[in-house]
Amino acid sequence: MNEENNIILPEPTLRRLPWYLAYVEILKANGVENVSSTQISRALSVDASQIAKDLSFLNIRGKTRIGYEVGALIEALSDFLGFTRSHKAYVIGTGSLGKALIRDSGLSNYGLEIVAGFDVNPDIIARTDLGVPIYHLDRIYEVMESNPASIGILTVPAQSAQECADTAIGAGIKAIWNFSPYRVKVAEGVVMANTSIYAHLALIFNRLEERHSRN
Amino acid sequence: MNEENNIILPEPTLRRLPWYLAYVEILKANGVENVSSTQISRALSVDASQIAKDLSFLNIRGKTRIGYEVGALIEALSDFLGFTRSHKAYVIGTGSLGKALIRDSGLSNYGLEIVAGFDVNPDIIARTDLGVPIYHLDRIYEVMESNPASIGILTVPAQSAQECADTAIGAGIKAIWNFSPYRVKVAEGVVMANTSIYAHLALIFNRLEERHSRN
Repeated sequence: MNEENNIILPEPTLRRLPWYLAYVEILKANGVENVSSTQISRALSVDASQIAKDLSFLNIRGKTRIGYEVGALIEALSDFLGFTRSHKAYVIGTGSLGKALIRDSGLSNYGLEIVAGFDVNPDIIARTDLGVPIYHLDRIYEVMESNPASIGILTVPAQSAQECADTAIGAGIKAIWNFSPYRVKVAEGVVMANTSIYAHLALIFNRLEERHSRN
Repeated sequence: MNEENNIILPEPTLRRLPWYLAYVEILKANGVENVSSTQISRALSVDASQIAKDLSFLNIRGKTRIGYEVGALIEALSDFLGFTRSHKAYVIGTGSLGKALIRDSGLSNYGLEIVAGFDVNPDIIARTDLGVPIYHLDRIYEVMESNPASIGILTVPAQSAQECADTAIGAGIKAIWNFSPYRVKVAEGVVMANTSIYAHLALIFNRLEERHSRN
């Protein structure tokens, strides 16, 4: 673990840093060698002083009039964001979204290593074609001994979300990544991130319908 | 379209309303008939006055000491959020996440009807087992005539995100739901929602590593 990761970064910074990374990765693929905050600013419509401030958390310095070396910036960002270190995770709820996350090899390029899935449906548990073992949720304590993980990815229906999160945390899971529409509560000290698919749908529908009603 | 949808709701309200919906749906499944804002407040750790304010946007009134009728509240929330009306969408990029969204029947219960997929990979385009037709992205203009949609779900790699979004908008797509790590720019008037999977990963990793370094 790098020393620079021992600080709690503000959420907006953590939201912007992956944008910068995606952008400089594209530059690298196009053979570009250096990039300035001004250039990132123009491409992503983020204030250049904000970019400089965000990048000041990293152990990297740009050069006057040249900017950052693209390869070094990618390395610094990936490392700083934790994408270069493996973080083991369980997928809890192996319906269509859970299965997709298990199969999505892209996530492993970003440091997320899904090592097992859990479900309560015997038909799914019997599957062996997902590349990782799928267990009944009752066995999570035992699997935590033999094949431990720190992150629980919650892809269960709303009505099971709180109970499944409690079970996972009881077994030793330290962070819950909640994809269910239910607002799961966790004890202080447990890391919680909500990916609110339904809230985003609601936002899109509202803006589309409002726009339509204006026309 | 309902008259109450002709207002732009604040984003935080649009984030909270689906939580209330998920919670009251669980109450209904458990045979509960009435619910008060105080009860929702305790269950979801949201301030009761905030809940009353959020629900005031809806065309529903609670009764003193009884609260809201659960069935009516579910109906009002689903309708208000647009989940009861069909909104047609294309999935652009039918890799593992794109395929999962096409297969995820859950989204159609929330008003999202995926009517076609687009890709540039001939192997994927030839697939017929996804339940909707998959076309080459070059054909989006033509498909927009025969099988139109208003929402483009962007599940392509970062380096293709801007170009695919531009193509979709050029063909008549009114809203982009971006799952790629790239910060896509759209013209004013086009609805944009970002589901920042990589930012959430970065948040989880940072909080876990910070916590670990403290112990």
